Amino acid sequence: MSAESTPPYTSPTGDSAYREAVLDLLGTVAYGELVAHEELTADGALAPDLGSKIAMARLAGEELAHFEAIAARLGELDADPHAAMTPFRSAVDAYHARTQGRTWAERLVKAYVGEGIRTDFYREIAALVDPQTAELVLGVATATEARDDWLVAGIREAIAADPRIEGRLALWGRRLMGEAISQAQQVAVEREALASLLVGGLGERGGDIAELGRMVARMTERHADRMTRLGLAA
Amino acid sequence: MSAESTPPYTSPTGDSAYREAVLDLLGTVAYGELVAHEELTADGALAPDLGSKIAMARLAGEELAHFEAIAARLGELDADPHAAMTPFRSAVDAYHARTQGRTWAERLVKAYVGEGIRTDFYREIAALVDPQTAELVLGVATATEARDDWLVAGIREAIAADPRIEGRLALWGRRLMGEAISQAQQVAVEREALASLLVGGLGERGGDIAELGRMVARMTERHADRMTRLGLAA
Repeated sequence: MSAESTPPYTSPTGDSAYREAVLDLLGTVAYGELVAHEELTADGALAPDLGSKIAMARLAGEELAHFEAIAARLGELDADPHAAMTPFRSAVDAYHARTQGRTWAERLVKAYVGEGIRTDFYREIAALVDPQTAELVLGVATATEARDDWLVAGIREAIAADPRIEGRLALWGRRLMGEAISQAQQVAVEREALASLLVGGLGERGGDIAELGRMVARMTERHADRMTRLGLAA
Repeated sequence: MSAESTPPYTSPTGDSAYREAVLDLLGTVAYGELVAHEELTADGALAPDLGSKIAMARLAGEELAHFEAIAARLGELDADPHAAMTPFRSAVDAYHARTQGRTWAERLVKAYVGEGIRTDFYREIAALVDPQTAELVLGVATATEARDDWLVAGIREAIAADPRIEGRLALWGRRLMGEAISQAQQVAVEREALASLLVGGLGERGGDIAELGRMVARMTERHADRMTRLGLAA
């Protein structure tokens, strides 16, 4: 099943394997957004000026609002939000523990790249799920132009101020993408229903593991585009 | 002038010394709320369980909303929010740097006590300013019963689990109040218009430094009530 075809699901409540996959999906998104709020807020606490501090706090606040939207939806589906999020804590926490930026520029790159990866993932899965879930997930895909522009400008400014950091930031971008793929893989191994959804294995047409590879390939391409926009090697 | 009498101001725009005092007031509240969002979010990142993590993130989100309300008001008053906040950064930052809780229980006590002190301060100043400013400031005084109940329950639970921490938490509460007073005093020395507003010196009746002492006394009493509610010596 390609991401472009029509999803076979019309509701998250009929098929029990599909329901399980949707709860996994919402659980991972909810926990990811909750921790994104924490991470961006911590970035703001280390911002070099008041304007950046406020801008980061606002980015963080949006992630918290996304968390609330997903948590509310889990409630509507009679799911326990804590139970839905818990299986994804270790992978999300590990990603962040392994990608703590040491400089403001690294933190800006992580905010830009991390948000981009999340948004790409949300758009990919939106094509695979029922319309209501798709709408919700697309609603939290917030790598908007205005957000991106601010982050990109800040990163380019930091590079202009000290061009020697360019090589390190390029490596940093590669590492962020690598850690994201590595943690996502961990999740896919542990959460069969979610993985089956991603490879189309829950649908009538059976699974296609190659589709998962193509999804990663598309996401890696978009990541490369973002690095190019920063003037960095991907 | 006592806090119970009618404030002599009807608008923040007429008198220029009064306007300056109001901008100081809003600047300190805005920056205080912005950093409270950061601090509570950092607490959430260290929470012992997912439920506490989410609850702390929600408390933090409310502080961010308060920040936005005050920043919007500064904009309405044609003031530069950054300029209004900047003079208060060092005192607010110093308070937090000197009161970093080492344990979850200390962080809960700081959240409860810190919020309580802020709320008491907001209620005190609401009695001294024009009605519109008063309404705004009272709107961010959010030491509500539901918030408090959750924090108090968590603290009492931590003490019940390990009664030996009681003495240290009592000292901790005293230190929080002491640091708050100390930083507030620093601000009062540096910001004459704000200090004059607090002692009634901007009004026709002239300043009364004793009123400031009485305000601190009232706030200390309320702090003692909170410590008593925790079962701790004040």
